[in-house]
Amino acid sequence: MTEQFSDDVLTQDAFLNGRVMARQPRHGYRAATDPVFLAASVPARAGQSVLELGCGAGVASLCLAARVGGLSLAGVELQPAYAALARRNAASNGTDMTVWDADLTAMPTQLRNQRFDHVIANPPYYAPHGPAAQDAGRDRALREETPLKDWMDVALRRVRDGGYVSFIHLSERLPELLAGFAARASVMALPLAARTKRPARRVIVQARKGGRAPFVLLPPLVIHQGDAHPGDGEHFTDPVRALMRDASALDLAAMAQA
Amino acid sequence: MTEQFSDDVLTQDAFLNGRVMARQPRHGYRAATDPVFLAASVPARAGQSVLELGCGAGVASLCLAARVGGLSLAGVELQPAYAALARRNAASNGTDMTVWDADLTAMPTQLRNQRFDHVIANPPYYAPHGPAAQDAGRDRALREETPLKDWMDVALRRVRDGGYVSFIHLSERLPELLAGFAARASVMALPLAARTKRPARRVIVQARKGGRAPFVLLPPLVIHQGDAHPGDGEHFTDPVRALMRDASALDLAAMAQA
Repeated sequence: MTEQFSDDVLTQDAFLNGRVMARQPRHGYRAATDPVFLAASVPARAGQSVLELGCGAGVASLCLAARVGGLSLAGVELQPAYAALARRNAASNGTDMTVWDADLTAMPTQLRNQRFDHVIANPPYYAPHGPAAQDAGRDRALREETPLKDWMDVALRRVRDGGYVSFIHLSERLPELLAGFAARASVMALPLAARTKRPARRVIVQARKGGRAPFVLLPPLVIHQGDAHPGDGEHFTDPVRALMRDASALDLAAMAQA
Repeated sequence: MTEQFSDDVLTQDAFLNGRVMARQPRHGYRAATDPVFLAASVPARAGQSVLELGCGAGVASLCLAARVGGLSLAGVELQPAYAALARRNAASNGTDMTVWDADLTAMPTQLRNQRFDHVIANPPYYAPHGPAAQDAGRDRALREETPLKDWMDVALRRVRDGGYVSFIHLSERLPELLAGFAARASVMALPLAARTKRPARRVIVQARKGGRAPFVLLPPLVIHQGDAHPGDGEHFTDPVRALMRDASALDLAAMAQA
């Protein structure tokens, strides 16, 4: 793929009811709701530092910055064209974010000398097998060239003791996610289900480095109202509408106390 | 503890609306709802074989036999007094069940030469630390003298290829349960939550030996209606009432298709 997207292949999309406007390739990897859910789940406070692994066009970090002011944001992205887009999106949203062109398994020394309060990621969902997509960039963003285990190891290395690693991924990968985090952190898992009574397709796993609390399986966040898709309109559940429209937080710790 | 419970320390309790009557020590380890949920989740068909590890007084196996006819039932129990009680309970319920006095990590050759269609267990929930309970037998039934990993390894060894291992345990042990099963089986997890919006306290993990399907996180089975305990009455949700009163099945495969 080219080193930079030309404007005619980009769309401009609204997140958090327009609080974040981000350019994305029309046919490439496109952020939808997963980075929004991920951003809502991060228990960051003003003044803290956040590193996003595989930040793509930067949507998760920008949504987090729209909710929590005064963060110090850094991103790592393997594909230069996406890294450039993340820089451009950060600038156009008035957000300060340092984006590094780097493979997360070979990060620059300057990053490897830092510890962050939060490390977040929405790693590729699909194994690096099967036919390639038409678009090599999309392909790379969706496919797991770097094993999930490496994402988790890097995240745990870059987060400070007591800091949080937050990942969103397919729920079918929960066994690996728990294997990677549970021995070295307190872990909570929040399943995301399209509707009540449906198996969860996504899961947010949040690991507090060095914690020793027992694993907590939270009640699922149900995204749509009703048992089946009613047709027109979005029909989100109240908490999902609140986080998408009003940039409200998904407070996993509060859910655990319920 | 003694090798046999005397009648004056036993109560007789009804399960599945009286379909199963089981004697249990008044102050020892007492089966409550967990063996009933476990039994409901086992996808056994008439004519199949079932091995219960750590069968205690036999409640899970007897509840399963009350729902599915013509099973060949075997149990392993470390504590001779509980094993004797399981035999007595099986006999008084007219159920054919072979109960072995054995440590599950050192099972008799005859068992080690068999493969079962199903292996089930409700392993001890608490680590073998802290002060001992007054009752040594209860203590042993609740405490995890044999590591959970050993329970899983023995279960996977004793089940045939394509057969099912079904465990109920604390949901905080899900990381270990998935680590033990997921590499060698197709796994589904059914969280059990006291109420909607509460974190799950229990989980049923069902592993199909040799399967390669992705892990499935099912929607939680919510036990009680409403957001808080309303006082009198049981106020179970409909599916829980159906399985407790009518001995209906918890069909995990059907839930996964929803």
